[in-house]
Amino acid sequence: MKIFNIFLAMVFIINVSCKAPQQASELQMKYDIIGVMHDQVEAWNSGNIDGYMEGYWNSDSLRFVSGGNTYSGWTTTLEGYKNRYPDRSAMGELSFTDLEVILLSEDAAMVFGKYQLNRENDDPWGLFTLVFRRTSKGWRITHDHTSQAEM
Amino acid sequence: MKIFNIFLAMVFIINVSCKAPQQASELQMKYDIIGVMHDQVEAWNSGNIDGYMEGYWNSDSLRFVSGGNTYSGWTTTLEGYKNRYPDRSAMGELSFTDLEVILLSEDAAMVFGKYQLNRENDDPWGLFTLVFRRTSKGWRITHDHTSQAEM
Repeated sequence: MKIFNIFLAMVFIINVSCKAPQQASELQMKYDIIGVMHDQVEAWNSGNIDGYMEGYWNSDSLRFVSGGNTYSGWTTTLEGYKNRYPDRSAMGELSFTDLEVILLSEDAAMVFGKYQLNRENDDPWGLFTLVFRRTSKGWRITHDHTSQAEM
Repeated sequence: MKIFNIFLAMVFIINVSCKAPQQASELQMKYDIIGVMHDQVEAWNSGNIDGYMEGYWNSDSLRFVSGGNTYSGWTTTLEGYKNRYPDRSAMGELSFTDLEVILLSEDAAMVFGKYQLNRENDDPWGLFTLVFRRTSKGWRITHDHTSQAEM
């Protein structure tokens, strides 16, 4: 019985020592991803679209999809944002809610959530699906599919 | 010189033997994923929505997003399709084009593409971002974010 208990304890220790780092690592990955989005919100709400764009992969392969429109590449995505939100009043106050982060591998994740802009005359909102990849600069959005809710 | 050539040949053989299976496996994964979507189109164009739904993960965690609407779970997604497309004429003729498959891991992939329905009175189209996971039944769509283009 004593030997059995020692065996059980050993299994427990091995189990914990194998699982704990993985769980900690997954938690850290989710924390890092949410951190990127938090920084985006802070930048947006300071009127800083360039800072907001830091969350995106700086690559010609970045893709931003909205309705039937596709913006391919970081520069095109940035220009699209600047055209659609030419000033602070158009930008409004951004918030992300109902975020769900699903890890797909060590270097890929999907985030589903809701965005809302609180503006003087309207509060547009919509849903987004993001694909994050772990790049040399940290986690970055490589694909953003956003759909605006009908107002 | 001869030894150097033998060394180069060995490096080449090792390189090919290491890379080829991986490339073949990636090609197979893409082939299998496109196969699921091909079967969906065949089912749809036979008026078989249940068959079309075979491409989706049969789980309460399946998510289908369109505009500002979220359908959670396989049954809700199926009902949503049947409500939006009550008969053959509403279903029209489906096609998927401009498909891009990006493998994210051994068991996860993203597919971006365009759908179009050719119907008697209109030809609605839109863009979709799919997350595929490899399940016990093969590759299945676990997350579908679709946005219709403005007509």
